[in-house]
Amino acid sequence: MDDHADVRRVGVVVGDSATWWLHPFPEGTDLVGLLAADRGTREEAADLAAQNDGLRPADVVLLPPVYPVAMRDFLTFESHVEGVSKGMQGASHVPDEWYAAPSFLFMAPHAVHGPYDDVAMPADTARLDFELELAAVVCRDVRNVTPEEARSAIGGYCVMNDWSARDVQRREMTLGLGPSKGKDFATTIGPWVVTADELEDCRDEDGFLDLNMEVRVNGAPVGGDRSGHMGWSFEHLVSYASRASWVKAGEVLASGTCGTGALAETWGRTGELDPPPIQVGDVVEMTVERVGTVRNRVVPDDETVPAVVPARRRVREEV
Amino acid sequence: MDDHADVRRVGVVVGDSATWWLHPFPEGTDLVGLLAADRGTREEAADLAAQNDGLRPADVVLLPPVYPVAMRDFLTFESHVEGVSKGMQGASHVPDEWYAAPSFLFMAPHAVHGPYDDVAMPADTARLDFELELAAVVCRDVRNVTPEEARSAIGGYCVMNDWSARDVQRREMTLGLGPSKGKDFATTIGPWVVTADELEDCRDEDGFLDLNMEVRVNGAPVGGDRSGHMGWSFEHLVSYASRASWVKAGEVLASGTCGTGALAETWGRTGELDPPPIQVGDVVEMTVERVGTVRNRVVPDDETVPAVVPARRRVREEV
Repeated sequence: MDDHADVRRVGVVVGDSATWWLHPFPEGTDLVGLLAADRGTREEAADLAAQNDGLRPADVVLLPPVYPVAMRDFLTFESHVEGVSKGMQGASHVPDEWYAAPSFLFMAPHAVHGPYDDVAMPADTARLDFELELAAVVCRDVRNVTPEEARSAIGGYCVMNDWSARDVQRREMTLGLGPSKGKDFATTIGPWVVTADELEDCRDEDGFLDLNMEVRVNGAPVGGDRSGHMGWSFEHLVSYASRASWVKAGEVLASGTCGTGALAETWGRTGELDPPPIQVGDVVEMTVERVGTVRNRVVPDDETVPAVVPARRRVREEV
Repeated sequence: MDDHADVRRVGVVVGDSATWWLHPFPEGTDLVGLLAADRGTREEAADLAAQNDGLRPADVVLLPPVYPVAMRDFLTFESHVEGVSKGMQGASHVPDEWYAAPSFLFMAPHAVHGPYDDVAMPADTARLDFELELAAVVCRDVRNVTPEEARSAIGGYCVMNDWSARDVQRREMTLGLGPSKGKDFATTIGPWVVTADELEDCRDEDGFLDLNMEVRVNGAPVGGDRSGHMGWSFEHLVSYASRASWVKAGEVLASGTCGTGALAETWGRTGELDPPPIQVGDVVEMTVERVGTVRNRVVPDDETVPAVVPARRRVREEV
């Protein structure tokens, strides 16, 4: 709405993915705080909000549901590790280290994009790719928690597209780092947060969330998997991250790419750039069952980036 | 002071490393905001604070100067890359990718320790190590800035010890990640922030800060270098990080380990664990000329960490 263009509010979404209304909470409502509240308090707030007039999708711009205090990206899908390894090392291989513990890296925290925002083509890449992930929003500070104790720290879930410039990433990984600039231009999260209690019936016999995940480019399916194929549950991820370290309210912990959830995996398996890298104009759409859909169009880069400066060579004191 | 144990204040340090007083700024003073102020405003605030009674070192506990909104660790010392590569790959080698751009990773943001805090021995390591680094504190949000424009975004500098569990780190790096749990237990920053203007006379002909750096274990020198051996200046680092991405006020950007600034480099060069990994009781002390000294004792771990759970194996649909 033009006359309210600068109003930012947390709201409750009522309806389903196709037909929904958004009912704003009172000004000053904090999403993470609300997620941490007990279910009764939260439902009372939702019931109260639902009494006001709802806004239709066309009336709102969905922002990223949180601006994370930190983001961690795990590597929990065995088949993705296997597929990518073929491209990187010439043969499919899942190292023993993968099975031992749910490893992760810290992601760029400042590049989150809303669920339907445009994504600018990043500089220096001819290999733009996506990563289909499921992500958890942490709602309380925890340290040294068991998986059972971690459960109450997970406020809810959203879809994540961890956009990746594979050529930039490859350079960084050669140095055993990151990746950072290969990914710090955009991370889509959304379309909203589905609270954990709403997904209790989607757990399998080991307590893993088992939801269908799929990604489409310009409407055509290009990959998908089930979250039940993760090697660890989200409670395991929080527990591991919390070992002798804080996992804080407002963090986002992501599953890592699911099987066939990135073009790089297909490129690795086949040795061919088919489907081709994402181009300006392409629309990448991801759906996680019961969570929702994010959809971003890639647009031309409108920024002037500073030049990359090579290293000043050290004056060698040795011969 | 026992009767003011819960008072947290930003202050100005007057004197030198050996003999100093701390003069608190008024309650609510924000360090990053002060660093962003023009020099006149900052000096006026310092002059005003210096009129109150100073506190002696014994009267205060120096906290981390900032709780960073993000931390980035670069890899700017060529000789460190060369030394470590010998241990990792069997031969000294600096890849072409290192020279091309100042690569970095995002660090754990929640584990900062004060300059004289004890550091608990992390779980699961028999290879505790340190990393001697110089770090810059960013005082304003920037995006797509040239090195020249980046200058005013650097509020000042501090010493960093990027504590590292090399065995944990090695497992993570096998997967092309992170490292994360290999480092997320402690990062020392301090002892304070020396404002950039105070170090203007320490720049070399290319504008690189050229300061002596050294590390001692239990009083014995074990490594050191000069910050002038960085492949890029801090302005270059901010500029590169800002390419199509935000670098925000309150971030800490670190140089990466200087030459001989970590035991792992010596282990790599010689193939022997000599000096030995850091043990409980060891004191690691780092000094950067004109910036100051941080000193941390390693103490026994007093935490009960949750068990590490291995992956649930995927039911393979293929044979």
